[in-house]
Amino acid sequence: MSLLGHQHASAENTSLIEVELKFAVSDLDSMLTQLLSFGAQPEPIEDHADTYYRHPCRDFVETGEALRIRRVNGVAHITYKGARLPGDVKMRHELEWCLAPGDAHGAHTESLWELLGFEAVATVKKRRRPYRWNHQGTDCTVTIDEVEGVGSYVEIERVVSIAQAEVAKAEVLSRAHLLGLKEPEKRSYLGLLLDLRRDDEQL
Amino acid sequence: MSLLGHQHASAENTSLIEVELKFAVSDLDSMLTQLLSFGAQPEPIEDHADTYYRHPCRDFVETGEALRIRRVNGVAHITYKGARLPGDVKMRHELEWCLAPGDAHGAHTESLWELLGFEAVATVKKRRRPYRWNHQGTDCTVTIDEVEGVGSYVEIERVVSIAQAEVAKAEVLSRAHLLGLKEPEKRSYLGLLLDLRRDDEQL
Repeated sequence: MSLLGHQHASAENTSLIEVELKFAVSDLDSMLTQLLSFGAQPEPIEDHADTYYRHPCRDFVETGEALRIRRVNGVAHITYKGARLPGDVKMRHELEWCLAPGDAHGAHTESLWELLGFEAVATVKKRRRPYRWNHQGTDCTVTIDEVEGVGSYVEIERVVSIAQAEVAKAEVLSRAHLLGLKEPEKRSYLGLLLDLRRDDEQL
Repeated sequence: MSLLGHQHASAENTSLIEVELKFAVSDLDSMLTQLLSFGAQPEPIEDHADTYYRHPCRDFVETGEALRIRRVNGVAHITYKGARLPGDVKMRHELEWCLAPGDAHGAHTESLWELLGFEAVATVKKRRRPYRWNHQGTDCTVTIDEVEGVGSYVEIERVVSIAQAEVAKAEVLSRAHLLGLKEPEKRSYLGLLLDLRRDDEQL
């Protein structure tokens, strides 16, 4: 089961982790109807284009790291996810910041990384619809992602302190149960996209 | 003679180059007095701290590239200088942009580069006093740099289109002559600092 806790690197968040599960959604309309019937509140829709990079002399697949430029409605952010840290809850260092206005669309960062020998692997494009879902006094974020060339997914997430990780896991599982979701998808969207490409190449 | 033209990478500046010469200054007060007597106009003083990085698997000394975080009065900028391009006027690609407000002090960028295997080589600290010097209708920028642990230098610079490079070279040389400056210093401040460190180690 992929209950992944991302430890954030920013000073305010050092003790917070994300506990999240992701599921493929076959009937998007029925999932949206369910969420609304549970009283989930829609938040602004975002268009994401995430370009992932290969390190010039280190295998990110082996180390479990990821480096990307995420463009949210066209505005660029850098994200770095470190190797998984040892421990019970799966945790990793994460850095994320916005490049606007100095490099609002990420063109400088893209040029720099290419000049330094980083290579773009693939771009994952998705339409993200986040919902805030309060159930019996507890908030969760549920996100519907329509991923170009991959399919539709729902992510259930709670951000908590490390001490609350186990309680959050149970809560996330319980929400999945309420939505009738059973088999979590462990692969990242990038992993799914690359697997589909490999399948295509083998046909 | 080090008349270096930096070709800028930003869209507005693709056809502009910097033509510049640098000289060691033994008597700083007399240089400042001379500049003022020529009518040079002081612009705001800046404190720079430039941290240079080593690439994890490429020798920047060999390629002639440079990657740094420059902090101007504490606000972080990335600068990348590419390998020298072939041609008569020495030119190189240059990228520079400000990281504020998303990463105003450069702490995220610093962490990212270190996590990706880039190593800080040295930090060059200087107090920069720029002057705008109009002489017989032509503008030059003259900059007095007090470089910590290295010494005081004056840089004479013009930013022109590639077509005007030769005229700008002559103009920069003529200004140097007016200020009584004779032997240009080809090394960068980083080069000077590292040379001094090597000398110290050999003592």
